[in-house]
Amino acid sequence: MPYCTQMEAAKSGLITPEIDKAAAGENMAPECLRRLVARGLAVLPANRLHRALNPRAIGSNLKTKVNVNLGSSKDLTDPETELAKVRAAVALGADAIMDLSTFGDTQSFRKKLSETCPAVLGSVPIYDAIVDLNKPLKDITASEWLSSARRHAESGMDFLTVHVGLNRETCRKFKANPRLTNIVSRGGSLIFAWMEMTGQENPFFERYDELLDMCREYDVTLSLGDACRPGSLHDASDPSQIQELIVLGELTQKAWAKDVQVMIEGPGHMPLDEIEPHMKLQKSLCHGAPFYVLGPLVTDVAPGYDHITSAIGGAIAAWHGAAFLCYVTPAEHLRLPTLEDMKEGLMAAKIAAHAGDIAKGLPGARDWDDSMSRARQALDWDKMFSLALDGGKARRYRSQSPPELENTCTMCGDMCAMRNMNRILAGETV
Amino acid sequence: MPYCTQMEAAKSGLITPEIDKAAAGENMAPECLRRLVARGLAVLPANRLHRALNPRAIGSNLKTKVNVNLGSSKDLTDPETELAKVRAAVALGADAIMDLSTFGDTQSFRKKLSETCPAVLGSVPIYDAIVDLNKPLKDITASEWLSSARRHAESGMDFLTVHVGLNRETCRKFKANPRLTNIVSRGGSLIFAWMEMTGQENPFFERYDELLDMCREYDVTLSLGDACRPGSLHDASDPSQIQELIVLGELTQKAWAKDVQVMIEGPGHMPLDEIEPHMKLQKSLCHGAPFYVLGPLVTDVAPGYDHITSAIGGAIAAWHGAAFLCYVTPAEHLRLPTLEDMKEGLMAAKIAAHAGDIAKGLPGARDWDDSMSRARQALDWDKMFSLALDGGKARRYRSQSPPELENTCTMCGDMCAMRNMNRILAGETV
Repeated sequence: MPYCTQMEAAKSGLITPEIDKAAAGENMAPECLRRLVARGLAVLPANRLHRALNPRAIGSNLKTKVNVNLGSSKDLTDPETELAKVRAAVALGADAIMDLSTFGDTQSFRKKLSETCPAVLGSVPIYDAIVDLNKPLKDITASEWLSSARRHAESGMDFLTVHVGLNRETCRKFKANPRLTNIVSRGGSLIFAWMEMTGQENPFFERYDELLDMCREYDVTLSLGDACRPGSLHDASDPSQIQELIVLGELTQKAWAKDVQVMIEGPGHMPLDEIEPHMKLQKSLCHGAPFYVLGPLVTDVAPGYDHITSAIGGAIAAWHGAAFLCYVTPAEHLRLPTLEDMKEGLMAAKIAAHAGDIAKGLPGARDWDDSMSRARQALDWDKMFSLALDGGKARRYRSQSPPELENTCTMCGDMCAMRNMNRILAGETV
Repeated sequence: MPYCTQMEAAKSGLITPEIDKAAAGENMAPECLRRLVARGLAVLPANRLHRALNPRAIGSNLKTKVNVNLGSSKDLTDPETELAKVRAAVALGADAIMDLSTFGDTQSFRKKLSETCPAVLGSVPIYDAIVDLNKPLKDITASEWLSSARRHAESGMDFLTVHVGLNRETCRKFKANPRLTNIVSRGGSLIFAWMEMTGQENPFFERYDELLDMCREYDVTLSLGDACRPGSLHDASDPSQIQELIVLGELTQKAWAKDVQVMIEGPGHMPLDEIEPHMKLQKSLCHGAPFYVLGPLVTDVAPGYDHITSAIGGAIAAWHGAAFLCYVTPAEHLRLPTLEDMKEGLMAAKIAAHAGDIAKGLPGARDWDDSMSRARQALDWDKMFSLALDGGKARRYRSQSPPELENTCTMCGDMCAMRNMNRILAGETV
């Protein structure tokens, strides 16, 4: 291949097979998508070792994409359960899967993923450094941290979350501006702890050029982690968060100079009214690089329902420019998600993404809704089920409560507005 | 009592016991609330025959309130099940209950409600006219329609939904501007059918003065129904909907002239980006009368998850001025809700209401979130459960998946960011 990364190809005017395929999924001319990728406004995460990939692009001018997190933890280590989640998530329309395993033989698990999974794949290398090296955190060396990223690239991950922006400058702002919930990013807290214990600069920041060269080698997209994402409404839009975002913007331009694709990770917990301004600030500070948000969760008080608190924030975020939504499940803040939690979280995120696409005026986004409403008007239940985001659940709900009158439902029965309006407009009586 | 309605009392400068109690629930001076009620910017629905009422006010300057719909239908007639839903809804924090029964001895059911239920009570009289009179729709007389409203007032309902705005003028606009989903309001479709079959004007519009006099007699708050609320994204903000809203604004001023309290009912299905403008339009056309919205549902494609599609829209609506959210359950469009559906719908609506209150800057709204986040930071799980919107669910989730390390959870285990940050900031190692 005459290029290292999709961005390099795009900058040189080349339309790669991946651009071609991803553009088809967007109903967009490949040339249009090429231009977005060349400018960094869209990414096409495609590690050259991820052979099972069905490529898709991520950017605010495109369909909003949805990511599903999974992976084993020390308390729940069953790769088969996690693989079952992967298959279910892909079947339900997840665009990307992040493996966040923090225990077990994670390298084999990721390799299995990249051999079989068509979704975009991501991971967070530093967990593995801790798991594999099996020594005290403070004894891990800067080179070992860097090596962990290479191992993940070698296992075919399309994007890697690396908390590069938590440098000494960001840490100073964090310490000078106390928060209610400190640093809630798991990776960010580990890097912070390491920096505190060793007195050293963040290794990924200090040796960013090496990291970029490695990303370039595999065409790994960098997902610049937000260690200072707010873990409570109280901490949203505070100096730590914004300081880190400034650094992430600077890192974005350095990556682009080496043709490395970049996404920026974002909040977190955030009041409804701060979301639109934050999406705009990110666009400005990070030069239009795609924004990948976790939530935002619009209240802190609803553990057990954080798929809903985050769907509210995610819809607004997608409307105002977030390109990529990380799902949140009902298990958030409580436990590792089950398969059922995963499904609920994914459905909520897909609703948010689609609602955002409609609101941002994405051409054709509303056709799906119009088809569904036509089926509703015609009381064509089979059509409704086939069009529904989750036809299985809709069908189950209806079948558990069969109506007396065919075509109506047990809510309204013979007072069904659809049925009666159809009759009366046809000149019949009701 | 020297007054008929709360509005009359408020206009005359009187602070009623109901105003006193409702103001306490808002952390607001009674005099402030009195002024809002006098101007119609808040309503205090309190039928003088509803003796079990724990009064609360509804207005955009106040906490956003949440309503739960329930009631028997021809397919599912079990008053005991519905009463169990009422008790559960009140225990879970519903501010209001609407009985939408369309079958059985509904008058007894409502009387039982008003004798025992402290929540604000509402209903839709016209269903009953059809059920009780047991004759073809077209043979019901204008006087019989009016009488149905009186019967509901007599049974202690605090507010009545009446579709007064669907007059000949609105019907003309509806017919001239075909919709994808016609009229989806159950009550609205029945009134439309009646008008079409009899050739007569909407009886509630034609005899609006009588209706107002009756409302005044019992201090029933009129909830002016939106027969033309959009049933699909396609139909949102169309001429029928806006025409009716203009009429509702005119009807509002007529009601206020007789000291009758008024709420306006609103959408429905509506794209995310149309919600804020619609909230502003309603404020303008309806002179600041409280807006009571059903949803808005921000996509049509997710039957089985419409508690989520509506929580997204409801949060935005509450932020931008809706005062009262009607819950939507996962059973919407599919069946009569079960007790479990009711719970899920209510939790989603309460999340939307609270998120909206935070965003609109309601004083003190965020204290709850800050307390929760403090408990999270302290890893104080009992405190988190006691503060959670649904502590039972949160506790169940965690107990089903016990972590190895006390105080962490099975998501992160010993990589828990809260735990590690607390340690490192205390000078300990991780």
